Amino acid sequence: MKVRKAVITAAARGARLYPVADTIQKALLPVIDVDGLHKPVIQIVAEEAFSSGIEELCVVCAPGDGERYTAAFTSLRDNLLKSYQDIDWAKEEAEKIDHLLSRLQFAEQREALGYGHAVYCAREFVGDEPFLLLLGDYLYVSDLPGQRCAAQLLALAAQEECAVSAVNPTIEHQIGRYGTLTGKHLPSQVGIYQIDKIIEKPSLSTAELELQTPGLRAGYYLCFFGMHVLTPAIFGILQKHLAQGGTNVLLTPALQELAETEKYLALEVKGNRYDLSRKHGLLRAQIALGLAGEAHDETLTTMVELLAEANNRKAK
Amino acid sequence: MKVRKAVITAAARGARLYPVADTIQKALLPVIDVDGLHKPVIQIVAEEAFSSGIEELCVVCAPGDGERYTAAFTSLRDNLLKSYQDIDWAKEEAEKIDHLLSRLQFAEQREALGYGHAVYCAREFVGDEPFLLLLGDYLYVSDLPGQRCAAQLLALAAQEECAVSAVNPTIEHQIGRYGTLTGKHLPSQVGIYQIDKIIEKPSLSTAELELQTPGLRAGYYLCFFGMHVLTPAIFGILQKHLAQGGTNVLLTPALQELAETEKYLALEVKGNRYDLSRKHGLLRAQIALGLAGEAHDETLTTMVELLAEANNRKAK
Repeated sequence: MKVRKAVITAAARGARLYPVADTIQKALLPVIDVDGLHKPVIQIVAEEAFSSGIEELCVVCAPGDGERYTAAFTSLRDNLLKSYQDIDWAKEEAEKIDHLLSRLQFAEQREALGYGHAVYCAREFVGDEPFLLLLGDYLYVSDLPGQRCAAQLLALAAQEECAVSAVNPTIEHQIGRYGTLTGKHLPSQVGIYQIDKIIEKPSLSTAELELQTPGLRAGYYLCFFGMHVLTPAIFGILQKHLAQGGTNVLLTPALQELAETEKYLALEVKGNRYDLSRKHGLLRAQIALGLAGEAHDETLTTMVELLAEANNRKAK
Repeated sequence: MKVRKAVITAAARGARLYPVADTIQKALLPVIDVDGLHKPVIQIVAEEAFSSGIEELCVVCAPGDGERYTAAFTSLRDNLLKSYQDIDWAKEEAEKIDHLLSRLQFAEQREALGYGHAVYCAREFVGDEPFLLLLGDYLYVSDLPGQRCAAQLLALAAQEECAVSAVNPTIEHQIGRYGTLTGKHLPSQVGIYQIDKIIEKPSLSTAELELQTPGLRAGYYLCFFGMHVLTPAIFGILQKHLAQGGTNVLLTPALQELAETEKYLALEVKGNRYDLSRKHGLLRAQIALGLAGEAHDETLTTMVELLAEANNRKAK
């Protein structure tokens, strides 16, 4: 199963990067990427997709944001070409942005009807193909050199010819924030599960009763990692859910239904994700990507110097 | 000498926060302040001034940016009031922004004729008063509890009734980036100098010959810290320099002339500054302000967790 298309949901203004949230588009905030360059968040997410083999991209955004993103990227490319004429990485970077712009479409989410609705807005772009679904405010660092988190997911989807969601074992006191699932461990395949049941943000008592997965450490559950390969069947399910009305159509119940109707796996991805909408999420992502890539030594030096300064200050 | 007015220069688009620089206004990037809240950089700089006793503020900016800043702050205030209705800090924060908006003026720098020219653009706002001059892309952390860096400077200006520039002893291999000066240590006053000579970005050999200051550690020089209290006499000097033409009118030669005509001191400020336009400057400032304030414990925990993750990754 070849996956050529990716959908990035970026419609929700990040209410939680408080209070500065709505003033600046979170997707355009600069973060140091693993290659050591400052880039807008949305570009880092897009490169996760492209470098994992994706060819076309659709960003689901708030009305009007498509033009803003395009304008921002165009100006970024022009500045790179103008200000850094003789610098090799600047030319490469500008070419990457050109590539991004030529493979990028937008789908506007005109009403805020929930995450399931946001995904549904990409149905025309996706058409009758499987697709990679990413969140516009999660950044990933892979543990596997040369294979991004998205690439791990896409490799399993290609091999097993089915939908796959990335999961990671999560300590019980955090599961109330995530879609949480259980399933049967595939024989002789480490970290791969046939999904049985998914519940959105379960209580601990519900999880204890219904979501235990044998083989995990005690007190751990499989939670969504924010990255899925889905079949277009999801749109039919979402359409049915949307027809029932409601102002917060979630993705998780649709995924539960998908698990009941077709083969659908979960993969423990080797890596970490950084959620920009959490408190201090931007700081966390900055440090993590800094430490994970080309900027490792400088990031580490910076951290040690600043710790020393802070300690000196306390000692005074 | 009571200083009521402050000027913040923010006209230069930060070419050095590469490559994302010109796409996003650096002054509006969110940084965690010492009070633990995310705020736009320019607001953190403004609060440095207000909480040191300043009453009126002028931001020297690129044409059109004044409206953008005002719109950003207005939307930030409205969002605070709307999204965080019942939260105490949100109301306080919204009141701070109202205060900022009511005390804030803009002066446009219509041509990029150098930092001296940017300062000159604020002459009508300043009028015939002394003023505090801050850079829009430097953030400060004071070593003195309850006394900001700007407050240290203003206290000395009030006491000595004269212009004062903040300096800090800087290792010789870095002085080529800064205005560097020498002077006579005032008797029985630690860290205060009567300024004799100032040279912009001196070579090491020039510094060795002309800028040694007795009493500093070997290999250290007094460099500008990016914060000055100046008398309005500076505008007359700048006007003269501007009349001579040239496309890069610096502040430093004007300050040298000021030192020749009136009493002008340098103060070793107790604190650190973080230059957002340096490579990784944003990351550095985020971590530093995080560690320095309310967010200290969370910042430290984040750093340790991420170091552990990065080490695990290397070990695999």
